[in-house]
Amino acid sequence: MLAVNETHDPELRSWVESANVAGSDFPIQNLPFGVFHRALTPEPARVGVAIGDRILDLRLCHRAGLFEGELAQVGEACLSASLNRLMALGQTSWSALRRRVGELLRDDRRRALQKKVEPCLVHMAEAIMHVPSEIGDYTDFYASIFHATNVGSMMRPDNPLLPNYKYVPIGYHGRASSIVASGTPVRRPCGQARPDSTMEPIVGPSRRLDYELEVGFFVGPGNVLGTAIPVADIESHLFGACLVNDWSARDIQAWEYQPLGPFLAKSFATSVSPWVVTLEALEPFRVPALIRPDGDPEPLPYLDDARQRERGGVDLRLEASLSSERMRAAKVAPFVVSRNSLRHLYWTPGQLLTHHASNGCNLRPGDLIASGTVSGPTRESRGCLLELAWRGEQPVTLPTGETRTFLEDGDEVIFRGWCEREGWVRIGVGECRGVVLPA
Amino acid sequence: MLAVNETHDPELRSWVESANVAGSDFPIQNLPFGVFHRALTPEPARVGVAIGDRILDLRLCHRAGLFEGELAQVGEACLSASLNRLMALGQTSWSALRRRVGELLRDDRRRALQKKVEPCLVHMAEAIMHVPSEIGDYTDFYASIFHATNVGSMMRPDNPLLPNYKYVPIGYHGRASSIVASGTPVRRPCGQARPDSTMEPIVGPSRRLDYELEVGFFVGPGNVLGTAIPVADIESHLFGACLVNDWSARDIQAWEYQPLGPFLAKSFATSVSPWVVTLEALEPFRVPALIRPDGDPEPLPYLDDARQRERGGVDLRLEASLSSERMRAAKVAPFVVSRNSLRHLYWTPGQLLTHHASNGCNLRPGDLIASGTVSGPTRESRGCLLELAWRGEQPVTLPTGETRTFLEDGDEVIFRGWCEREGWVRIGVGECRGVVLPA
Repeated sequence: MLAVNETHDPELRSWVESANVAGSDFPIQNLPFGVFHRALTPEPARVGVAIGDRILDLRLCHRAGLFEGELAQVGEACLSASLNRLMALGQTSWSALRRRVGELLRDDRRRALQKKVEPCLVHMAEAIMHVPSEIGDYTDFYASIFHATNVGSMMRPDNPLLPNYKYVPIGYHGRASSIVASGTPVRRPCGQARPDSTMEPIVGPSRRLDYELEVGFFVGPGNVLGTAIPVADIESHLFGACLVNDWSARDIQAWEYQPLGPFLAKSFATSVSPWVVTLEALEPFRVPALIRPDGDPEPLPYLDDARQRERGGVDLRLEASLSSERMRAAKVAPFVVSRNSLRHLYWTPGQLLTHHASNGCNLRPGDLIASGTVSGPTRESRGCLLELAWRGEQPVTLPTGETRTFLEDGDEVIFRGWCEREGWVRIGVGECRGVVLPA
Repeated sequence: MLAVNETHDPELRSWVESANVAGSDFPIQNLPFGVFHRALTPEPARVGVAIGDRILDLRLCHRAGLFEGELAQVGEACLSASLNRLMALGQTSWSALRRRVGELLRDDRRRALQKKVEPCLVHMAEAIMHVPSEIGDYTDFYASIFHATNVGSMMRPDNPLLPNYKYVPIGYHGRASSIVASGTPVRRPCGQARPDSTMEPIVGPSRRLDYELEVGFFVGPGNVLGTAIPVADIESHLFGACLVNDWSARDIQAWEYQPLGPFLAKSFATSVSPWVVTLEALEPFRVPALIRPDGDPEPLPYLDDARQRERGGVDLRLEASLSSERMRAAKVAPFVVSRNSLRHLYWTPGQLLTHHASNGCNLRPGDLIASGTVSGPTRESRGCLLELAWRGEQPVTLPTGETRTFLEDGDEVIFRGWCEREGWVRIGVGECRGVVLPA
C-alpha cells in the first residue's frame, strides 16, 4: 500500500495514460471523489474517482473484491448514491480509500491487478455527474475582505467595511433545495426590485443577474448539537473542496436584503462542480493565512492556532469565463473575466467551520460551506460582475465586441479551479458551468 | 365516509372519551398528524393522529387493513418515519385520509369497527414525539409588522420600519440541522458579542438569550425548480401548522447580523411542536388578512387574490409562558407572558409561500416555513422578551418575585396554540417546550 503522502510523489504515474498528460485536472496525485451514473444505462448513481478522462467506479471495485479487510466498511459506503456515508466515516477512512485507489491506478506493471481494475473504468464522456452529496444545510460565508470592501464601498463610500468584519467570519444560511450540478441551466428569476427609490417597486425578470466565484467545502463527520469543534481539530472535519457559483440577482438583493440578509436574490439556483478534491490532495498547496495588515486585530483565540496561521490557506487558483450565444455561434473560446486565488480569503476554510460550530450548531456529513465571492486585490481578481463592471459603470467587453454589466440570457458562466506549484504535479477541481435561460 | 367538512360538525363526538372533554386540544374536529414511537418499545417511528389523550397509530391501522381501495397509497405513506411522503401526496390524499380517520374514531356505535381500531391506539404518555418531517430547508419570515416595528424602533427610533417592509414579505433561510422536537433541552450558546462599541468584542455564553413565539407551516407537494406557485393555488401547498420557538441570542445577533442577517444567533436550536394541525381543521378559524392602514400599499398582484384577502388569515391564538427553576421548586404554575393571535400577521401564510416560490425556488415536501415572531398591537401581545422587556428596560416580573429581561439557565419556555370561535369546537396545536441548559 502507498505511504500516506505517496500520491503526492511527482514521479508517480498512472497506467490510465490520459492522467499523465501535462495539464490534466485529474492525475494520480489528485483522485477526487464524485457521484455519477452512465448516461445510457438505467443504473443507480454511484461513487467514483476521477483519473484522467476516466472515472473509476468504486461500486464496481467493491463488487470486484478490490476493497477488503480494513477497507470493507469504506467500500460499503461507496455503494451509496451520494458521498454522505463516506464523508461520515472520517479522515482515516477517506485516506485509506484514497491510498488504495492510488495503488489500483499506479503504473507499477502489476498487470494482473490492472486487468481487474480496467473493467471498473468509465469514460467521463459517458457519465452524468450529480451533486456530490445530499446537502442537509448549505452555508455561504463572506470571507474575502476584497469582495466585502468592494461591495461595501458601493453602498457606503466612506465606510466600506462594517466594524464586525475583522472579528466575525460573516456568513448566512443558504438554500439547499436549489443546489444543482454543473451543467444544469439556470432560469433567470423574477422578483421585486426598486430601481428608483422615489417610485413603487416593480415585479419582473431580474435585470442584474450575476455570478459569484466561490469555493465550497464539504463537511466530514460533523459534530453533535450543543458541542463546538476546537480549531485544532477542524481540518479533520473538512472532506474536500469544489467550485460553487452562487448565482445572484443584484436588483432583487438590493431591495430585499435589509434587515435579514439575502433571500430570493440567491435561492433560485446555486451550481456546484461535481468533483470533490480532498484536503489530502490539496496539502502541497496549503499556504499561510492571509497576512493581516498592521492594525488589524488578530483572530480571536477560538479561531486561531499555529496550523491555521502557517498552513490554513489554500493556493487554489480560480478563473471565471463568459461565453455569450454570439461567441458560441462564432466559435470564439470562452473569455476569462476573473482570475484569482483562494489564498486571498481573510478567513481560512478551517476558521469558517470552527466559527460555524462555535455556538453548538451541528454540522452534518455532506453539508456544504462556501467561501463567499473570492475577490483579490487587483481588478482582474474581482469575483463577480457587480465588482468587475463596478455596478454597471465599467462594462466588460467580450471578444465579439459585446459588453456586459450583468449576465444576458444565453450567457454561459464557466469556473475552473486548479493548484500548481514548482516541483509538484498540477491538480484541478474541474469546472462548474451554467447557461442562463430566459425568465 | 364523512363529507369533506363533516369533521367540523360541532355535534360530532368520538368514542375515545378524552377527545370529548371540553378544552381538549385534540377533539375529533382536529385530527392533527405527528410522528412518534413508544418509549419502551424498540420500534421504528411511525405516523399517528392525536385524539384526546391517545394517538391513533396509522401504521397499525394500515396493517389492520383499515386503509383500503383509494386509501392504499396514502396508507403506505403512513408506514414512513416522517410525514414527508404523506405531505408529498397532496391535498386530496390528506383529506381522504383525515376523513377515514374521522370515520374510524367517530362515536357512531359501530362496535365491530371500534374493536378493530382500539388496538391501534397508544397513550400519549407512552409516546416519544419526533420532529414531524425531515426538514430539507427551514425558512423564517418576519411577517408581524408589530414585531418589525418594535424591534426597528429600538434600532432606529425615527424610522422603525424599513421601506421594503410593506412590499416584500421579508424572510431568511434558517438552519435545518438544529431543529429539535418540543421537550429537547436547549444549551445556551457561546459566541462573540460587543456590548460596548468602544471595546473589543468578547467571547462567552450569550447574556441575552430569548425565545421567539412563532407558527410554522409545513409544505405539501411543493414545486419544481424554476417554476412559481400562483397565489390562487397556494393553499393546496400548505399541509398544516405547528408551533415554533426560534431561540435567539440577541447579543450575538446584534454584533453579527450586518450585512447578511442572523446566523449563529439562531442556528444553535429551533424547537417545534410535534402535532401538525391541517389547513382543513383550521378552516373554520380562517379570517380576513390584516386590514392595512390607510396609505399602506395593497399587496402586489402576485401576492393578492380574493381568498387571501377574505380568508387568508388564521385566528390561531398563541400563548408563551415561563417557568423558572424556583417556580418549579415552589410548584408555581408557568406564568403567561405573551398572549396573541396569528391573525395579526401583515402577510398571510399563503402570501409567504407564494413569495418564497416566486423566484422559482423549489419548495419540497416537509420544508418548514415559519412566520417570524408573532407580536400584536398591545404590550402583552409582544412575542419575545426583547420586546416585552424592551431591550432590558422593562423587566418582566414572575410570580416568585424574580425578574427577567432575558432567559436564565433553568428557565422553561412553553408555547401553546389553539383556535376557538362561537359555535365551533375548540381545537389545539398542543405545546412546544424547552428548558435552557447552562453553556
